[in-house]
Amino acid sequence: MTTYASPIGSSLKRVDGPGKISGLEKYAADYYPDNCLWAGAKRSDHPHALIKKIDISPVRNLPGIFAVLTHEDIKGANRVGVPEMDQPVLADCKVRYKGDPVVLVLAENKTLLQEAIDKIIIKYEPLPAVFDPEAALAENAPLLHENRNNKNLLLGGKVIRGNSIAAMSECDAVVEADFQLPWQEHAYLETEAGVARVDEEGILEIIASTQTPWRDRNELAYALGWPVDKIRVIAPYLGGGFGGKDGITVQGLLGLAALHSGGRPVKMWNSREESFLSSTKRHPGQVHYELGCKNDGTLHALNCRIVLDTGAYASLGGPVLALAMEHAAGVYRIPHALIEGFSVYTNNPVGGAFRGFGAPQVLAGLEQVMDILADKIAWDPLAFRLKNAVMRGDETGAGVWMSNSTAIIPCLEKVQEHPLWTSRQAWVSQSPPFKQRGVGLAAGLQGTGYGPMVADIANAKIELLSDGRFRIYSGVADMGQGNNPTNVQIAAEVLGQAAECFELIQPDTLQTLPSGSSAASRTTYSYGNALKAAALQLKERILTRACNMGMGLYAEDFLLSSGRLNHLPSGREIPLGLVAASMRPEERVSIYSYTAPVNRYPDKINPDIRAAGFPHRVFAFACHLARVQIDELTGEVEVCDYLAVTDAGKVLNPQLYEQQVQGGAVQGMGYALWEDFKLDRGELMTRNLATYILPTSMDVPDILSIAVETVEESGPFGMKGIGEIVINLALPAIANGIARAVGQHIFKSPLTAEQLLLILEKRPAE
Amino acid sequence: MTTYASPIGSSLKRVDGPGKISGLEKYAADYYPDNCLWAGAKRSDHPHALIKKIDISPVRNLPGIFAVLTHEDIKGANRVGVPEMDQPVLADCKVRYKGDPVVLVLAENKTLLQEAIDKIIIKYEPLPAVFDPEAALAENAPLLHENRNNKNLLLGGKVIRGNSIAAMSECDAVVEADFQLPWQEHAYLETEAGVARVDEEGILEIIASTQTPWRDRNELAYALGWPVDKIRVIAPYLGGGFGGKDGITVQGLLGLAALHSGGRPVKMWNSREESFLSSTKRHPGQVHYELGCKNDGTLHALNCRIVLDTGAYASLGGPVLALAMEHAAGVYRIPHALIEGFSVYTNNPVGGAFRGFGAPQVLAGLEQVMDILADKIAWDPLAFRLKNAVMRGDETGAGVWMSNSTAIIPCLEKVQEHPLWTSRQAWVSQSPPFKQRGVGLAAGLQGTGYGPMVADIANAKIELLSDGRFRIYSGVADMGQGNNPTNVQIAAEVLGQAAECFELIQPDTLQTLPSGSSAASRTTYSYGNALKAAALQLKERILTRACNMGMGLYAEDFLLSSGRLNHLPSGREIPLGLVAASMRPEERVSIYSYTAPVNRYPDKINPDIRAAGFPHRVFAFACHLARVQIDELTGEVEVCDYLAVTDAGKVLNPQLYEQQVQGGAVQGMGYALWEDFKLDRGELMTRNLATYILPTSMDVPDILSIAVETVEESGPFGMKGIGEIVINLALPAIANGIARAVGQHIFKSPLTAEQLLLILEKRPAE
Repeated sequence: MTTYASPIGSSLKRVDGPGKISGLEKYAADYYPDNCLWAGAKRSDHPHALIKKIDISPVRNLPGIFAVLTHEDIKGANRVGVPEMDQPVLADCKVRYKGDPVVLVLAENKTLLQEAIDKIIIKYEPLPAVFDPEAALAENAPLLHENRNNKNLLLGGKVIRGNSIAAMSECDAVVEADFQLPWQEHAYLETEAGVARVDEEGILEIIASTQTPWRDRNELAYALGWPVDKIRVIAPYLGGGFGGKDGITVQGLLGLAALHSGGRPVKMWNSREESFLSSTKRHPGQVHYELGCKNDGTLHALNCRIVLDTGAYASLGGPVLALAMEHAAGVYRIPHALIEGFSVYTNNPVGGAFRGFGAPQVLAGLEQVMDILADKIAWDPLAFRLKNAVMRGDETGAGVWMSNSTAIIPCLEKVQEHPLWTSRQAWVSQSPPFKQRGVGLAAGLQGTGYGPMVADIANAKIELLSDGRFRIYSGVADMGQGNNPTNVQIAAEVLGQAAECFELIQPDTLQTLPSGSSAASRTTYSYGNALKAAALQLKERILTRACNMGMGLYAEDFLLSSGRLNHLPSGREIPLGLVAASMRPEERVSIYSYTAPVNRYPDKINPDIRAAGFPHRVFAFACHLARVQIDELTGEVEVCDYLAVTDAGKVLNPQLYEQQVQGGAVQGMGYALWEDFKLDRGELMTRNLATYILPTSMDVPDILSIAVETVEESGPFGMKGIGEIVINLALPAIANGIARAVGQHIFKSPLTAEQLLLILEKRPAE
Repeated sequence: MTTYASPIGSSLKRVDGPGKISGLEKYAADYYPDNCLWAGAKRSDHPHALIKKIDISPVRNLPGIFAVLTHEDIKGANRVGVPEMDQPVLADCKVRYKGDPVVLVLAENKTLLQEAIDKIIIKYEPLPAVFDPEAALAENAPLLHENRNNKNLLLGGKVIRGNSIAAMSECDAVVEADFQLPWQEHAYLETEAGVARVDEEGILEIIASTQTPWRDRNELAYALGWPVDKIRVIAPYLGGGFGGKDGITVQGLLGLAALHSGGRPVKMWNSREESFLSSTKRHPGQVHYELGCKNDGTLHALNCRIVLDTGAYASLGGPVLALAMEHAAGVYRIPHALIEGFSVYTNNPVGGAFRGFGAPQVLAGLEQVMDILADKIAWDPLAFRLKNAVMRGDETGAGVWMSNSTAIIPCLEKVQEHPLWTSRQAWVSQSPPFKQRGVGLAAGLQGTGYGPMVADIANAKIELLSDGRFRIYSGVADMGQGNNPTNVQIAAEVLGQAAECFELIQPDTLQTLPSGSSAASRTTYSYGNALKAAALQLKERILTRACNMGMGLYAEDFLLSSGRLNHLPSGREIPLGLVAASMRPEERVSIYSYTAPVNRYPDKINPDIRAAGFPHRVFAFACHLARVQIDELTGEVEVCDYLAVTDAGKVLNPQLYEQQVQGGAVQGMGYALWEDFKLDRGELMTRNLATYILPTSMDVPDILSIAVETVEESGPFGMKGIGEIVINLALPAIANGIARAVGQHIFKSPLTAEQLLLILEKRPAE
């Protein structure tokens, strides 16, 4: 009576819902251990400077101040980062951006903490700073990291296919454009937070809002010089992540604090301002596109140059560049291409992982030049995309094989037949007074997983409890996207159980098994594959045991359902607890290690770019359409209608799927129109959500979502990742809509009202 | 460039489309062999009579008459049928219905053939006849088949759960009703047709419009006394079947004719009138329902008595009864139930297989008493159904375990939230003058496959041709539902090929492997499972061979796509033909034998009923809603809106899926409202489509279709059968709508304007 239909494909209620709504579920920020100290950092107010002296004497003896720590208190390498370990927990010789932490203070409460931080005096010797990545590549540019062969170039490389220079001259039409892409703040609800302590046995236990508990553990051991097997990282549900918690945020400082707190627990929870100051951002980029085609609509040659500003430290600036290059030719066949990429150190805030991971930057450019080129040869922009779109078995212009499910053409076709597209001319012609309307679209893709060189491994663990219930050990953190509730759905499907029959253990390096990051659209794909296999194995064990217990002859005669086994031939009902009781504890635990397949073609790819994650094997695809209306008097852009057609394989849970589509499209709209992250020589001008404007539900239309449900053979139940593809296309779709409305493309985003107004005012009166 | 996205889940264009539209594809009726003779039968005009004398002398020497055959010319058992072999190819001692074939004539053309048939004189001694199944069960009723233990009872049995008699008295509300269900004509476009000949090697080759080529072969061997290995049956695409070609139609007569045609080919093609006269129909039924519930809305007890009229011969009258009993408690948990069933011989036309196979008859009754009972306890009819609906792991009132995917609740919920349901009161209140409106719904299920005792086996065969293309040997006939094009889709998915890379061989006992009938919602389920496995095996063979040829190290590095293999690491492209050339012919053929799993619980079920196919393991589910409007002046019923929500697992091809939903719903509407098959003492009153009224697209609304895509673990890519569930609910949904409009249920269907007018005229003026 308690078993639900078929969980896969249905909007099973989220098992985490009640706990979150009622407030019983604890996020990292919700932990307030008894007797805890607050930790906080004194941060650099120079973009680039040598540290001459750190004077902590004004605070050392203040009441309520427990400890004041500098890099000298760190026993380990004092460096975090993956793959490049270049970021100090506390700056030692110099600071590299305004926000670099220099001193860590432990205090009895937040007020005393802030007072002490303010009183610490650091003497700097300012160094020349560089804020523009192209300038940072110059011969004599100030060096961020002195001992590097490539100076300020974190990663650079080329993808060459055919001869794009010669081929460009064979084209009937060529267009060229330079795009400037902005920073973007992750702006999760829960800013970076956590608690830490060292217990009696010397275990450093950290509960943190992190997408990467296992990687954190390794980084902390290296940076702090504490044995890895004495570090435990626990990742409760996150109040948002979007890539901003892909790696160490407060964990280094927290760990350091706990090692100096005399056994007392410590807590850190960044204010919104500190979060803006210290967290990673989406890499700003300068992207040059030159694209040529024949008169029959066939794309022929592409030149693309991508420069990403990774800021003061590497973070994931290398892999983000590799993905940008991989996605730079989008979903199109282009026989000749040259794609150059540069990820460059500057004295700006650190660029890191952000939903889309390089793809939004390049697709913004590509999809706009696609529209411009279509106009030039007088082709319908959708027909032009259809003409050149890849099918399974094709290579993209970037040389990436579409070896798995590839449904961009069906996505384009869904848009083509949709009323929002077919009736666009009527809609534009019905524009109200003082408004201008346009309809734009964009297509794109997003790789799933880590690419060819970093093994994408998930280790699932599921246990039949002695009372006949089940416990799932979630290996991957849940940022809110619902992967851990989806784990219940996957196990419920395989084991025929109702959701109520499961307990969920959130990622915890003591209890769960290493399964990688909650990132790269791979979370449910990889862990789901592992869990499905582990659950099948457990099911088989249970049925076999029931047969061995003499309860039936054939495993297939048993129906496994909520808390029981039914033997259909006899009508006998057996409590699962009874079978569980006959199993040894280790038999009741099923583990399975899954490694995602990769495409290997080393000969063709620059080894550095390949090492950074190029190429992927499985891709999600989408086509987005935006109907925009521009106010001629204010320049304000309204997105009136929005359609997102997505191929992310089988939809496991329609509600969670649509939630990703909605959230991603809206975050993309913020990136396109409103989120104007401003810096002045490394100094933050937009310090919080009062000046950095996020869209709310009042600012966006209902997002229409259509799923093209391909079967991805390698994914659990045919799914592939939905988390990132959803954000990649809002900017170019809106930009193309605006261009059709006002007759002119804007190459610098966000596409602010100010920019629009300038264009509108310069236009000749009609 | 030629490989399509991911074929599964997309509306891949039907590979059979161009051939059918252009007329190049040949149906059985399209074959006109050179020098062929026409065959036709002289049929009985008595419902029950002894044959005293057959006088063929008036025609024996007519010019153009090649042969005149009677039962004496038949060397075999002269009986066809499965499982009961009781139907003569040509009547011997007696005739049992008006239409029984007695003499077979072979002529040079159809005109001469008809003249000769008219001139043959048969002398009969009329016997008392029985036309009502209840009367046929009486002690002294005329016997159809003399040597049977159970006299006119073909099959009878009970399903008993708990104690429904006692439980009924515990109910707070009980309702009771008797339903009369009509015959239904399959009315396929292509009437029964075929050609046959005996070749030089003595092979009797029959090309026929049949759902069951393999079973036909066995039946023909037995009936005609011809060695089974000397019979070849070929089943081209059918111009419709719906169960009416599930078994022998013209094949017995055709085979007999070919054995007496001196080596010349023979052809038969029934006129519409002869088709009406001779073909099987949906079993008419008398169904009694008594259903009781508690005041809290819980169903508590069910009594059901089903009497089906199987007519003169058994055909599938036993299995149809077993399925009617299995589906008699619908989708509800009912702890106490008594279901009695009787399938009875009469001198009426033969009842046989028809889409739904017994389920439409019982669900028509059950779903109406569900509404009446809901009204009685003042419950919303949808809430009442939700309250009692089964989930996976439950047993239905008929004792059938829901062991596999079971999504009736999500189906009901989709209707519950649909505007056609939520706005029904507003719609009813806006009824135009002289119209009355009502909204009705019904829920139900349909088993997939043959049940526990007849193994549901499919043997797939797929071949890599020497040129690198593939050939699929379809084991199961395609009535038009698209299972054979879907085979291409399944193989294309597994092998990464475009549709153009496949050839399709239609079922042919010489070339393809035995795979059962195109019936029982099992066609794509069973053959698809077999084909998917065979294709996977072939794929592995191809990749392994490529490795063995030294073209790569790992199978996973190869991408198999249209006509080629790509080795991703090296970028090498290998024509599939090259790999094919290195394989021996037998290596290029992959076969796989699939047997569908069954639920076995022998102890609980009457063995005769079980042998006839009770119970199933996999079920499709649906909830249908109809908005009807009745003209007070004419009694005419208009179906204004129709919604079909279906759980048939993963949708492999949305277009084919919806085509089934549309076709099934419309065929169900015909059954509900217009298809009034009339008999007068065994004599057909509705002899063709002029008086037997089929709905056309002008008579029905657009059908809204919503798919609830569960994952059926046992089905290929998660699908289960869609072919039959679609027809089961139109009658009760429309009947419930009518009852809500006019305030009174009609228990005899079809629900004709005449019946409505009687009700409307008797109503007190308002």
